[in-house]
Amino acid sequence: MKPLVGIITGSDSDLPLMTEAMKVLEELGIPHEVTIVSAHRTPDRMREYAQAAVGKGLKVIIACTGGSAHLPGMTASYTPLPVIGVPRKLKSLDGLDSLLSMSQMPPGIPVATVSIDGAKNAGLLAARIVGTSDKNVQEKVDKYQKDLESQILQKAEKVEKLGYKKYLEDNK
Amino acid sequence: MKPLVGIITGSDSDLPLMTEAMKVLEELGIPHEVTIVSAHRTPDRMREYAQAAVGKGLKVIIACTGGSAHLPGMTASYTPLPVIGVPRKLKSLDGLDSLLSMSQMPPGIPVATVSIDGAKNAGLLAARIVGTSDKNVQEKVDKYQKDLESQILQKAEKVEKLGYKKYLEDNK
Amino acid sequence: MKPLVGIITGSDSDLPLMTEAMKVLEELGIPHEVTIVSAHRTPDRMREYAQAAVGKGLKVIIACTGGSAHLPGMTASYTPLPVIGVPRKLKSLDGLDSLLSMSQMPPGIPVATVSIDGAKNAGLLAARIVGTSDKNVQEKVDKYQKDLESQILQKAEKVEKLGYKKYLEDNK
Amino acid sequence: MKPLVGIITGSDSDLPLMTEAMKVLEELGIPHEVTIVSAHRTPDRMREYAQAAVGKGLKVIIACTGGSAHLPGMTASYTPLPVIGVPRKLKSLDGLDSLLSMSQMPPGIPVATVSIDGAKNAGLLAARIVGTSDKNVQEKVDKYQKDLESQILQKAEKVEKLGYKKYLEDNK
Amino acid sequence: MKPLVGIITGSDSDLPLMTEAMKVLEELGIPHEVTIVSAHRTPDRMREYAQAAVGKGLKVIIACTGGSAHLPGMTASYTPLPVIGVPRKLKSLDGLDSLLSMSQMPPGIPVATVSIDGAKNAGLLAARIVGTSDKNVQEKVDKYQKDLESQILQKAEKVEKLGYKKYLEDNK
Amino acid sequence: MKPLVGIITGSDSDLPLMTEAMKVLEELGIPHEVTIVSAHRTPDRMREYAQAAVGKGLKVIIACTGGSAHLPGMTASYTPLPVIGVPRKLKSLDGLDSLLSMSQMPPGIPVATVSIDGAKNAGLLAARIVGTSDKNVQEKVDKYQKDLESQILQKAEKVEKLGYKKYLEDNK
Amino acid sequence: MKPLVGIITGSDSDLPLMTEAMKVLEELGIPHEVTIVSAHRTPDRMREYAQAAVGKGLKVIIACTGGSAHLPGMTASYTPLPVIGVPRKLKSLDGLDSLLSMSQMPPGIPVATVSIDGAKNAGLLAARIVGTSDKNVQEKVDKYQKDLESQILQKAEKVEKLGYKKYLEDNK
Amino acid sequence: MKPLVGIITGSDSDLPLMTEAMKVLEELGIPHEVTIVSAHRTPDRMREYAQAAVGKGLKVIIACTGGSAHLPGMTASYTPLPVIGVPRKLKSLDGLDSLLSMSQMPPGIPVATVSIDGAKNAGLLAARIVGTSDKNVQEKVDKYQKDLESQILQKAEKVEKLGYKKYLEDNK
Repeated sequence: MKPLVGIITGSDSDLPLMTEAMKVLEELGIPHEVTIVSAHRTPDRMREYAQAAVGKGLKVIIACTGGSAHLPGMTASYTPLPVIGVPRKLKSLDGLDSLLSMSQMPPGIPVATVSIDGAKNAGLLAARIVGTSDKNVQEKVDKYQKDLESQILQKAEKVEKLGYKKYLEDNK
Repeated sequence: MKPLVGIITGSDSDLPLMTEAMKVLEELGIPHEVTIVSAHRTPDRMREYAQAAVGKGLKVIIACTGGSAHLPGMTASYTPLPVIGVPRKLKSLDGLDSLLSMSQMPPGIPVATVSIDGAKNAGLLAARIVGTSDKNVQEKVDKYQKDLESQILQKAEKVEKLGYKKYLEDNK
Repeated sequence: MKPLVGIITGSDSDLPLMTEAMKVLEELGIPHEVTIVSAHRTPDRMREYAQAAVGKGLKVIIACTGGSAHLPGMTASYTPLPVIGVPRKLKSLDGLDSLLSMSQMPPGIPVATVSIDGAKNAGLLAARIVGTSDKNVQEKVDKYQKDLESQILQKAEKVEKLGYKKYLEDNK
Repeated sequence: MKPLVGIITGSDSDLPLMTEAMKVLEELGIPHEVTIVSAHRTPDRMREYAQAAVGKGLKVIIACTGGSAHLPGMTASYTPLPVIGVPRKLKSLDGLDSLLSMSQMPPGIPVATVSIDGAKNAGLLAARIVGTSDKNVQEKVDKYQKDLESQILQKAEKVEKLGYKKYLEDNK
Repeated sequence: MKPLVGIITGSDSDLPLMTEAMKVLEELGIPHEVTIVSAHRTPDRMREYAQAAVGKGLKVIIACTGGSAHLPGMTASYTPLPVIGVPRKLKSLDGLDSLLSMSQMPPGIPVATVSIDGAKNAGLLAARIVGTSDKNVQEKVDKYQKDLESQILQKAEKVEKLGYKKYLEDNK
Repeated sequence: MKPLVGIITGSDSDLPLMTEAMKVLEELGIPHEVTIVSAHRTPDRMREYAQAAVGKGLKVIIACTGGSAHLPGMTASYTPLPVIGVPRKLKSLDGLDSLLSMSQMPPGIPVATVSIDGAKNAGLLAARIVGTSDKNVQEKVDKYQKDLESQILQKAEKVEKLGYKKYLEDNK
Repeated sequence: MKPLVGIITGSDSDLPLMTEAMKVLEELGIPHEVTIVSAHRTPDRMREYAQAAVGKGLKVIIACTGGSAHLPGMTASYTPLPVIGVPRKLKSLDGLDSLLSMSQMPPGIPVATVSIDGAKNAGLLAARIVGTSDKNVQEKVDKYQKDLESQILQKAEKVEKLGYKKYLEDNK
Repeated sequence: MKPLVGIITGSDSDLPLMTEAMKVLEELGIPHEVTIVSAHRTPDRMREYAQAAVGKGLKVIIACTGGSAHLPGMTASYTPLPVIGVPRKLKSLDGLDSLLSMSQMPPGIPVATVSIDGAKNAGLLAARIVGTSDKNVQEKVDKYQKDLESQILQKAEKVEKLGYKKYLEDNK
């Protein structure tokens, strides 16, 4: 099946973090592709990737990188697709630099910024976007949320039944 | 035409800022609705609004508010639709509080955060999302970007031709 | 005895941190209950918990969570009880995001925010609130503070008597 | 009637801001007293005020000040009552200094911090605390929240009926 | 004379701020050109501008913009010339977003970041760079610094002679 | 009388702010001198000023400047006198840059940093230092604090007597 | 010999950090005393300590604590001596909270704030203050700085002679 | 060959970090020298180093240090050469203090600030500056960027061919 979501990372060191996005898309049955695209080191590749995205049938691009973090914003400049930015925490500043660099885009070119290191939420946001035209996916997102709810409800029940002390001991 | 984008603001004082979102959606021909929904003052209304959104045919919700700014995150908890958050700058902290509150959502429930006071970009991001299943809208977004480009190119040409001093004088 | 303080955490991973709150309430003889309530993953449960709180005889709710940290604010929207928020430090931003998200509530719905990871102080603040209508508890809080004072006075005496070098050696 | 809430400000320049707290307490029928107490300029008065509070029948103290903002924390050191801190925004740093100074109290002595310049919420939090032992007050708080809800619902209805453009024109 | 310094701004609204850079270059006799290049709105133009820079004889590029502020970093990706970034303060966050976005570039592509709104220093830094291969310019920079010194020395002398009170009166 | 306190500012634009320091020293009868010394524009003058300070009989140096704010730290490098730094708020970042630049000195060379724009406190800190070897000055500092206390006590009495509403009306 | 410098810490956990201050005072032959004084847990002891300081012959007080960090500011309220504040980095916020809480004191009561965890600089600042009335100490401070200089000069010479690679190998 | 780039660090503890700068200069064949110069501990040496730089044939100075980080700014005050500042992350504040202290220089004296701990980029920026008058170096910088590009392209190809899962396994 043709990928609907393109996931790009500024370097291969971002891939382990981003597996959470891939997992969630797999879980929800949304075909996706993954590759490396660096805004600063491969600017031409970035342009080409972004410009080809609509033609390839992509519906969303997820871009993850840290520091100056220009990848999602520049990608959004070359495509009319929604671009999701995942700010990555590097050794300094706890990801605040990339969060600001992604979110504070100028009027005209939006980036949909999720939380610092928020790979899973990037996958889920992509799924919600795909779901706007695919009832099947939308229902899966809905179910995903309900499952999350159930998990919490079960844990809550357990905590209430066992008491938090026993619960903590059991879950050490 | 049935609205595809729902715009909600935490208070009526957010409406003037958000008109930039409405304008851009109008410009791109995307039907939308606007109303006031406060997470803290009308939590039941928020839940009902969010839960009814899919059924009403909405494809995206844009939520704008400042400070603690729980509206987009809570709305996202009640719907499988993509929710765009517009952090609003209030009297203190320059919008940093709402930017963090919107973007730093826990794994499971994403919010697509745009820039502080980024009403126009919220509208454009909504359009990009609607465009994933409506070629007509996608082309309009594409054209919108090209128009932005042309405007800058024209200004650039003028600056180069007149020199920046004359340009600044003419545009005082 | 019916619980007077309800302690809720956004996930079971917050429970170990919060045991400091439970311990202090136990120490002061204040009956309390502990469970898991997630604003984003179990919004209905949150509403129900908050709306039932007064009827159950609760006098205070303590809510702990990190990141966007909507739990205390949203809980406060559904109850007239005082709600204490404990911002939790997660992997990024050192808890600043949750501190701002809890404290910067809009006019109308207050949250009593304590320090980042301030579980013990949340318990003590709850005790002070319970103490406003229970002289016994208020006296215990008073005594708790006096005991803190004594502990410091003893340590101070020791440091002065032994000298800081010997003191540090003895307390290695 | 004997005051139940004591409102103290670090200087008389904080009084205009704090009138929002007084107003809300008046509105909810909660007797209160207002005076000036500076942690740094009148430390003895602060100690005496705090130590006398329980005996005078106060149930809550609200303390407002900016910058280093030691007033609520030091007051809390001298009383077992709950102390609410209102961080005030001065000329620099937007109130972040006082927010941190109030909220980051060490284990043992809690301060219930509300939002920067959050005078109204300080009043409402005091009311919620008083309400834990006064059903009448608790019901008034409940009603206050319902009134807030109604106000938003009315505005929302108006926006939906008139459209946001007409609404904004009418409310210029 | 062929320009040695290229000054580009993300929008024409940055031009008034940047005139300080042009003035200083004029003063030091360094030929320069000024135009508008937006990373997000005219990405192709940016690429072409940057790629043509060496061939045109430019020695330095100064790029000024605010918010996400990708212009200097992306320009640096397309040219081996030194690129100076001037972070611009917009309505929120006091320029911190653009300062971080410019300075926190990934290993491989440097940007020489100057102060927020530091147009004059950008011009002077460009002059220092040009001066590394033009003794005449280097001496002018040296003289510029000596002139600054003289100005301060004169003011200092005046303050000391008149006393600060009289000085302030005279310079009202 | 020979000056005991030397006040230096990075530019004459800092003088109006610093008059609060001069006033307080005058009030306390401490002879002082005022001049302009820029770390970056007059580095030699700074060195000479700092190196001559002990010989001239100065006991403290107060240095005020904004932004990078190297003046107090570099002055401290050239003298064994205590140097007080007054971080000045400029157009961006609210003085946070100069606060950090002054306070975060490396081990070996301390700067006594006071609050942002804290000219008066710089004067008072200088007086406290002079007072360590001049009982007369120390008593004046003591009296100064007592006067501050009296002023607050008088205002407090007035607020309590008149009520805050009347007080605010009278002091409009 | 009677102590001239009083070193107080908010808890015994601050003592290991503060040994750097004691060491430097020892090295410079300045008699000092060390004890524990908590603003929040032993407010009366703090008042007594501060009020007795002048009478005991102290010339400077160094106060170290983290978080809300009221100790130096409150101590300064009770004494005309110069008080040096050492902000301590705790588990969250990297000491920024205590840095702001100490430095941002209101007009009237100054604190001489040094760097986060800056124990050594606190000792040296105390020595500089003592040195204002004790030529012997002042000369020792001067010599201390010259020794620092020599150490760096020796290291520099070594790096230049050996080359940085060999230097790093030798100093592994 | 005579060094063109002078690398100075505030202490020998900065040398390991800075080896990345030396490596890149070596790789690009740019002669350089390395030594230790402390603004605060060896201010005279700093002045002499900076004043001698032009005469020695240096074209650029790279200065690395943390905390208050006055070294690059003060060096720039004594030379007309471009000075590159490398803010270093120390134990607190993640390098934000040195980033601000370096970048926020006053009008008149620029510092070219690179990223926190950005040693490699400092080397590359120096190379770009040297390259403005040495085509050979400029071509090497160009080739360096192309090599970076190739590396990413190869990795990207591999990820696409193997799939990210296999790629991650292979590169564990």
